[in-house]
Amino acid sequence: MNEFQFENKHVDAFEEKSQMKMIFGKLGKVFASSIVALGLVAVMPMRAQAEDGYELWLRHARMDPEAAAFPTGFMLDCETNSPTLNIISDELQSAFMAMTGSELVRHDKLEDGTLILSSTQCSGSLQSDLEAVESDEGYIIRSENGEEIGHTLIGAKTDIGLLYGVFDYLRQVASEADLTKLDITQAPAIDLRVLNHWDDLNGHVERGFSGESIWDWFRMPDYMSPRYTDYARANASVGINGTVLTNVNADATVLTPRYLEKVAALADVFRPYGIKVYLTARFSAPMELDGLETADPRNSDVQEWWKTKADEIYEYIPDFGGFLVKANSEGQPGPQDYDRDHAEGANMLADAVAPNGGVVMWRAFVYSAEEPDDRVKQAYDEFVPLDGKFRDNVLVQSKNGPLDFQPREPIHPLFGGMEKTPVMLELQLTKEYLGFSTHLAYLGPMWEEVLDTDTHVKKEDASVADIVDGKTFNHKLSGIAGVANIGRDRNWAGSIFDQANWYAFGRLAWNPKLSSSSIAEEWIDQTFDLSNAGEETVLSMMMGSREAVVDYMTPLGLTHLMGTGHHYGPGPWVDDLGRADWNPYYYHRATADEIGFDRTKTGSNALAQYAKPLRKKWSNLETVPDNLLLWFHRVGWDYEMKSGLTLWQEMVRHYDRGVDAVAKMQSDWLNLEGEIDAERYQQISDFLGIQHKEAKWWRDASLAYWMSINGLELPEGSAQPEHSLEYYKALSFPFAPGQTQ
Amino acid sequence: MNEFQFENKHVDAFEEKSQMKMIFGKLGKVFASSIVALGLVAVMPMRAQAEDGYELWLRHARMDPEAAAFPTGFMLDCETNSPTLNIISDELQSAFMAMTGSELVRHDKLEDGTLILSSTQCSGSLQSDLEAVESDEGYIIRSENGEEIGHTLIGAKTDIGLLYGVFDYLRQVASEADLTKLDITQAPAIDLRVLNHWDDLNGHVERGFSGESIWDWFRMPDYMSPRYTDYARANASVGINGTVLTNVNADATVLTPRYLEKVAALADVFRPYGIKVYLTARFSAPMELDGLETADPRNSDVQEWWKTKADEIYEYIPDFGGFLVKANSEGQPGPQDYDRDHAEGANMLADAVAPNGGVVMWRAFVYSAEEPDDRVKQAYDEFVPLDGKFRDNVLVQSKNGPLDFQPREPIHPLFGGMEKTPVMLELQLTKEYLGFSTHLAYLGPMWEEVLDTDTHVKKEDASVADIVDGKTFNHKLSGIAGVANIGRDRNWAGSIFDQANWYAFGRLAWNPKLSSSSIAEEWIDQTFDLSNAGEETVLSMMMGSREAVVDYMTPLGLTHLMGTGHHYGPGPWVDDLGRADWNPYYYHRATADEIGFDRTKTGSNALAQYAKPLRKKWSNLETVPDNLLLWFHRVGWDYEMKSGLTLWQEMVRHYDRGVDAVAKMQSDWLNLEGEIDAERYQQISDFLGIQHKEAKWWRDASLAYWMSINGLELPEGSAQPEHSLEYYKALSFPFAPGQTQ
Repeated sequence: MNEFQFENKHVDAFEEKSQMKMIFGKLGKVFASSIVALGLVAVMPMRAQAEDGYELWLRHARMDPEAAAFPTGFMLDCETNSPTLNIISDELQSAFMAMTGSELVRHDKLEDGTLILSSTQCSGSLQSDLEAVESDEGYIIRSENGEEIGHTLIGAKTDIGLLYGVFDYLRQVASEADLTKLDITQAPAIDLRVLNHWDDLNGHVERGFSGESIWDWFRMPDYMSPRYTDYARANASVGINGTVLTNVNADATVLTPRYLEKVAALADVFRPYGIKVYLTARFSAPMELDGLETADPRNSDVQEWWKTKADEIYEYIPDFGGFLVKANSEGQPGPQDYDRDHAEGANMLADAVAPNGGVVMWRAFVYSAEEPDDRVKQAYDEFVPLDGKFRDNVLVQSKNGPLDFQPREPIHPLFGGMEKTPVMLELQLTKEYLGFSTHLAYLGPMWEEVLDTDTHVKKEDASVADIVDGKTFNHKLSGIAGVANIGRDRNWAGSIFDQANWYAFGRLAWNPKLSSSSIAEEWIDQTFDLSNAGEETVLSMMMGSREAVVDYMTPLGLTHLMGTGHHYGPGPWVDDLGRADWNPYYYHRATADEIGFDRTKTGSNALAQYAKPLRKKWSNLETVPDNLLLWFHRVGWDYEMKSGLTLWQEMVRHYDRGVDAVAKMQSDWLNLEGEIDAERYQQISDFLGIQHKEAKWWRDASLAYWMSINGLELPEGSAQPEHSLEYYKALSFPFAPGQTQ
Repeated sequence: MNEFQFENKHVDAFEEKSQMKMIFGKLGKVFASSIVALGLVAVMPMRAQAEDGYELWLRHARMDPEAAAFPTGFMLDCETNSPTLNIISDELQSAFMAMTGSELVRHDKLEDGTLILSSTQCSGSLQSDLEAVESDEGYIIRSENGEEIGHTLIGAKTDIGLLYGVFDYLRQVASEADLTKLDITQAPAIDLRVLNHWDDLNGHVERGFSGESIWDWFRMPDYMSPRYTDYARANASVGINGTVLTNVNADATVLTPRYLEKVAALADVFRPYGIKVYLTARFSAPMELDGLETADPRNSDVQEWWKTKADEIYEYIPDFGGFLVKANSEGQPGPQDYDRDHAEGANMLADAVAPNGGVVMWRAFVYSAEEPDDRVKQAYDEFVPLDGKFRDNVLVQSKNGPLDFQPREPIHPLFGGMEKTPVMLELQLTKEYLGFSTHLAYLGPMWEEVLDTDTHVKKEDASVADIVDGKTFNHKLSGIAGVANIGRDRNWAGSIFDQANWYAFGRLAWNPKLSSSSIAEEWIDQTFDLSNAGEETVLSMMMGSREAVVDYMTPLGLTHLMGTGHHYGPGPWVDDLGRADWNPYYYHRATADEIGFDRTKTGSNALAQYAKPLRKKWSNLETVPDNLLLWFHRVGWDYEMKSGLTLWQEMVRHYDRGVDAVAKMQSDWLNLEGEIDAERYQQISDFLGIQHKEAKWWRDASLAYWMSINGLELPEGSAQPEHSLEYYKALSFPFAPGQTQ
């Protein structure tokens, strides 16, 4: 086959695609999708071969040949070879084949439009500039336009850096940048950019809403699904460089040779994509696996056990990243079982992995066996006194807020609260508390809100982003973790829009100062083929979606009102669980007169954990933002809000606004029919239907409950709840997905 | 777009495909599969878009345009419309587009080569012949060649019959039959051709080895995955007309309105494909769902509860098929809890569904709480006395053998043992005891062996097939069930070759007299694009594969030697479980001198449950076949076999033969590289690697154990086990898939 044939065929296919779009309107949906399948996918006639989201943001949709000054060919600057360079070369060639329909040929010498890839050893004219790039993972993309010819260089200090550069370059192509005027220097702001898979060894994913675990442990290592490669590729394309394979509620079995062999096989797949493997360490593993009588970190047998185990792991996986540990939280074993503190526990593991360059990520999400006076104060109280006691290769990993991945929380006071310890930020991609995978909630704005929040622990450079990337306190090590939303669903994340959360996590991990809207734009460019108006529509849907969830679930600083256990749907009335802080009631404390949790000096004084400017702002009813009001304050139902409305009126307005926002997303989406391939369009449409039904359920059930407490009427024009409070209370969901096993 | 463009493009694609095959050899595998993805699937560049098995046997691979006298167009004989007719029309058009690259146009009048589809109301010249077809699901395909023009008719009494006819016609095309000389009259021999999904409502599949349940209960009914349609289509293509959605270890929750709404949505998807929905009924549901104090079938409240429940179900699903029930077996509730017998239990449910035409499939797989004198005798002992007591709409569903889906068993004595009751055959597609989804074991020959076995309860027409299809005892109702091997794995069945078991089940359910090798040939034709030699290779792999499993797992009539609980790998030594018949030891009873289970008159006399000719044949050491020897007899290790070898020597020979057969499959498969698309080739290759490793494990562990018992040496030339017996005994598999929850 010569190039001409290839080109020719693809141009035909391109023309046909446009023509087929016109036909869509005339035929039924099913038939239309059959035609797509047939027309473009000659050997695969089944319906599900239509676009189903498997390709994520790496679809490389066909582009107008005139859209950009596509490169005429590419060169690898000198004759080197590595698995990563092979991937780079395949990636470029397959991307351009898909986007332009013609092969990106290899040039022997510089020609007009050559794309030059400068690998490790010889980065050509970029050499000196590259030396100034701080990270080994950084890269430079630069167009150089001479009098005769122009070309573009991508240079990096490492092959992995070059891979990142190539993915960035392809993003520039997709966003129709001027490819003759590129001048990009990039280095990741954060060292460890890691996904946390809460995946159990039996395939269950805790808080997973996109099917079972993608790790098919049973068939590994003899069968390695091609999906693992695709996973690594997708992560590398957004700069993620680590993955914790197992649940923080850990099973020691993964540390046995039978499983380490499987872990090693995954590490082999991931390595050329720059991704390191980490495991969760169950603190009591020495007892469970080898019958030690204690897991006391001061016990020398225990210390020796972990050293030996770490060495064994490094035999299997020479670049093993290290351990993630959840200890003394929600029943997990930990050093406090032996009256030792978190630092002693973390340091023992840190010493075990240090000789091989490993790290320990020690979670600050502690949920002790005793009832606290205020649940949200515990992590700060336990960890701040330990600041300075952790080894250099320990990061303390803290959720963004002090409670638990709620639709909105203030920032966690550990950001800024620990000066001497790198505090790693843990975000949750899987939407445990934001409607699972069937609610559209783009989390970029939430994460931007967190990262941009000024902790005020210093006069400048003290945003959460600055703390996390190490700038504020000059930490050498920095990290960010995202609880993965990935499962075996065909579209990976459970829904198309949940892919955007994976994408945004990677992009923010690389550069926490990016705006969530620019990230959304990038993602839209790569995920759909939309008109400009269509892009605007999707962008506005995404950007408003998280606030809609806050509005219909937990407006005005309310929090943790979800159904018990599964966290599916509303349960603000729940007040009968074994422990006060397990109950939604604990968090709102609504009475006939008042609602909210007083965390000022007159209450739990959790506000004392924040730096003075924040403390002042949030303590004062005049300055606390509406959206955190009931988080920090207890006020009357008739409290006058900034809007002039009473709290109750304002609250109802928020609930109504949340439901209306979802209805608006539904109608917006309807307008995109025909602009989006049938299968993805239909799934999103159906999911918006679910979201609307459930947003209304949230509103109605919540209002029915509040009204039963405060005895107030709904403001005029606001519809009565569809059912009685008893109806909502009686609903049960025995098989809601994602529960802790 | 005009037709010419379409045609033209596809011819291009066809040429390219051939050319690409040549390129495969020159490039690395990964890159080659990228090229395939790019070349043929312009908009979908990711690797996994290569052929991954999703299309099953419905790939409709491109054919040589000269291979057959393809129809020139098609007509629907008169202007009718139904969802099924729309499916037929789409199915034909998409199949021909894929196979020939050109559209199958609709003819307005008869032309040379027209394919005429005669739907319900007007079956044209086939009318009188169709009246002779016994089943409403039957069809006729007939070529009529006049002097001027020839055409082919497909006629049926119902739309569903026509759909079956169209799928048959497409099979004829794929197998390169002469399309101008077709004369086929078909009607299904068995009425109820149903899959049994052992799927729990939480997504777990009991004995499932292909991922979690395809029923995404949580998102139903608001989101109905396109996969449900593809599932229905695949089933219809092989004649399956019913599906039991839930596990026989049943959960009453599926009978609640919230779930019935979901079941109804599935029934709506399946209906146009001729597939009825059934549910498993938990016998104690009246107590669990509505607080009744008993589930006693003689209690009128209980009877009334079931009637009301059945009526409620029919409100949701007017053509609901009925209930499948596992009662008083392995801890499931049932009528014996109230000292009632199975007939009383079944009849109560049968009365509840009878007014709406439903049936009850009552399982004979009973595993009572008391230890039996011989486990395999129980079902016969419990059910034969009840013969004649069941309602007309009850079928007793019996596994093929009296134990539990072992690699080989004699037939179940209930076949022929119950004259007045339709005995439904239950086969297991999911290979619980045959290596899960990673061992290649084509079950067609096993099922053929069962169906062809003469029960000798009558002089003629008394094979198991005759019993099951109702011929032997003139039953009006007949049924066959297959425990589904379907899960959410991309290839549905866990492996490509397990798709053949799904296919073969459907084909044998339609016609239990088909040969397993002809079914395999059909499947190969539709599943791969092989040379004749390649087809022969795959056929011989398939046809020998089940006997290989018998050889390396349970040769010579041995049985149930699998690891406890998960049934993964060998555990012949297990003898410490709570109850004798839970232990592998129970089934072989090996001592230093002897091995085997005496089921003759000197032993348990289970043989008395068979008709005299069988009883005589199997009782006699001279006439019992080697492959059932130790099932029925207890003999010395030095017993002289028909081969002249001792039992021990013969046994070792079987183990060795089993391992060698897998090695042969591996080397045969290697020869097919390049004939098969990369992803499916690689997966099968990897799975054969797993099978070989595990076949050797089975052999080595089993021999190590037998040698520890009989103290014998291995015959010369037979390799020592790789590890010690202690090594094999110490292996544990805490997360083996498919276990009972």
